[in-house]
Amino acid sequence: MSMTSTNDDVVALAQRLLACPSITPATGAVFDELESMLVPLGFTVDRFTAGKAPDGPVENLLAWRTTGAGPHFAFAGHLDVVPPGAGWNSDPFSPDIRGDLLYGRGAVDMKGAIAAFVAALADLPDDLPGTISLIITGDEEGPATYGTLALMERMATRALRPDLCLVGEPTSSHRLGDVMKIGRRGSVNMWISVAGSQGHVAYPHLADNPIPALVRILTAVEAEILDEGTEWFQPSNIEITDIEVGNPAHNVIPGKATARISIRFNDRHSGASLIDRITALAAPEGGTVEARISGESFLTAPGILSDIVGASIRDVTGVEAELSTTGGTSDARFLSRLCPVVEFGLNNATMHKLDEAVAVQDLRDLQRIYAQIVDRALRLS
Amino acid sequence: MSMTSTNDDVVALAQRLLACPSITPATGAVFDELESMLVPLGFTVDRFTAGKAPDGPVENLLAWRTTGAGPHFAFAGHLDVVPPGAGWNSDPFSPDIRGDLLYGRGAVDMKGAIAAFVAALADLPDDLPGTISLIITGDEEGPATYGTLALMERMATRALRPDLCLVGEPTSSHRLGDVMKIGRRGSVNMWISVAGSQGHVAYPHLADNPIPALVRILTAVEAEILDEGTEWFQPSNIEITDIEVGNPAHNVIPGKATARISIRFNDRHSGASLIDRITALAAPEGGTVEARISGESFLTAPGILSDIVGASIRDVTGVEAELSTTGGTSDARFLSRLCPVVEFGLNNATMHKLDEAVAVQDLRDLQRIYAQIVDRALRLS
Ligand SMILES: [Zn+2]
Ligand SMILES: [Zn+2]
Repeated sequence: MSMTSTNDDVVALAQRLLACPSITPATGAVFDELESMLVPLGFTVDRFTAGKAPDGPVENLLAWRTTGAGPHFAFAGHLDVVPPGAGWNSDPFSPDIRGDLLYGRGAVDMKGAIAAFVAALADLPDDLPGTISLIITGDEEGPATYGTLALMERMATRALRPDLCLVGEPTSSHRLGDVMKIGRRGSVNMWISVAGSQGHVAYPHLADNPIPALVRILTAVEAEILDEGTEWFQPSNIEITDIEVGNPAHNVIPGKATARISIRFNDRHSGASLIDRITALAAPEGGTVEARISGESFLTAPGILSDIVGASIRDVTGVEAELSTTGGTSDARFLSRLCPVVEFGLNNATMHKLDEAVAVQDLRDLQRIYAQIVDRALRLS
Repeated sequence: MSMTSTNDDVVALAQRLLACPSITPATGAVFDELESMLVPLGFTVDRFTAGKAPDGPVENLLAWRTTGAGPHFAFAGHLDVVPPGAGWNSDPFSPDIRGDLLYGRGAVDMKGAIAAFVAALADLPDDLPGTISLIITGDEEGPATYGTLALMERMATRALRPDLCLVGEPTSSHRLGDVMKIGRRGSVNMWISVAGSQGHVAYPHLADNPIPALVRILTAVEAEILDEGTEWFQPSNIEITDIEVGNPAHNVIPGKATARISIRFNDRHSGASLIDRITALAAPEGGTVEARISGESFLTAPGILSDIVGASIRDVTGVEAELSTTGGTSDARFLSRLCPVVEFGLNNATMHKLDEAVAVQDLRDLQRIYAQIVDRALRLS
């Protein structure tokens, strides 16, 4: 396998990626950098742009290298970053090492992890048959409309189907390696509306106030216990996030009232089953439900992949990783349709914050962990 | 008493008042007209202007005529009108007789009634001792901040205190004389707020959603039965008129939620007692209450004044008037602090609407009814 000293230096790789401003949705220079790292390592690189403003255009990069018949291991991630915000102590897109830390927007979420994966490839023995691929989008922090889903379509047309997938999101909490994610809760928003008939408060018999019915529905929603949690998931949770009536006139009975709820749910439910359930609570009171499913839940039951990741973390850091399903959604919700998916990456303490930074030692350790993971995965039969 | 043929012609008087545009708050010309009608009848006229934009300036007119010792009968009303709106079949401020109807903004609410009262004065025998006064504001349709209340202060400084008061609002419903108002419900608006702690829906244990507590409070508010009605009042009624959370972010648990309620209440309650009652429902859930009392309820128990009004209606029209307390608030809520108050006037079918109109015959009948009422009132001992 071709190797260069540059591609072995995870800090230098991270700095190259961090130097490219790539606020979501991202295109261009940051992908040029990654391509220039992968081509010398023997990867075929396929880049394409999808979508239009305001959610696009989005650039996506698919890279793969096949060395004989063997397992297909995929690494997934994103090169876009959230806006840096004002108040940084150094330019967010001029990576800066101060003390033991490398500063820059995306240092932990997740250009640092992509650099660690590329550097890990340089550590691999060159006699391992199988396929390694990278599934890298420029649209994870935004609506994700033209990102990983578009990459998965591209993979299908190229008959690329991984057997195992690692997503490099920053899952570590207090120290590198303490948490990996083996699943994520699903997320669905619903709008519960009750239509009434507008009128004057002095003549309520001529009107039909929709608010009492909405209050009864919300009381039922609040009383609903979706589950008590599962072995790997916390209990599903419903939050009423907004109520909108929009009636400025003190003497007017409103004609419509709407509440918005947000449900984070585990693998006991699907978005569709929850829509049915809330609709059943709303319908007796004349309420109607509109919904948008942000993502289904997924679980990669503990097994080969989590064992490989856990063993690699243990070997490098001595830390026993917790298997978690907490937090928000990630693109793993899409990739889990293809194969077992685990998420593991850097410390998330500074992600999306001012002065986002990664410990230089964490970058080097992550490179070694990722190298062990790929090595173990390709040796599976 | 001095009499002129002009002042005896209720239609001509109404036309003179209707020809003056006097959109609330009103000043000037329309008061000049009324003064020019009252001075020849021997009235002392005291006009004054109060308030500043946007609720003012407001003109008010106090007129009185004393003929020896006797009862003090007051007639109260307003010369301001609501904006005409677009779409009239004739100019709203160019009074126009078509068929049996006189059209113009204020025809029934309530320049027609003021004209009828002035014309009624010309019908009175000139040997009745007592005091007749007119309490006329230019700010009834607006916030009423500088209107009847200011007139009442003016009356106090002049030691003018009526024994009986008739408010000329359009109370008739289907035919002239079918309804008089002997009371009005009170009105209070309250804002019930619950403060929580904002957070992300994925981490509800780090937030405190105020909506469930507000829903519990509103459930208690909806279950509250204030009373079953009284002999003269319908049951007091609570309407939830608005809920405001103002949280556009789907993934955010809001930090505050507020509901607005409107209570129309009878004489079993006061604004203050209701504020206490709602506060007692809100407090256990951490809710706080702000309130604005628009008006207290009042009742002029059936008696001398309603008897006089009823007998006069019966004599002129043959109609038996219903004693009602329904509808919104009026300036009678203020005047009831001084003496018994009854409201009686023209048909309200077209008030505040396009092509507001009064039947010419109703003007003539109302003049005769008002004349009988004053006559009977001044003969009381
Ligand atoms: Zn990320
Ligand atoms: Zn009126």
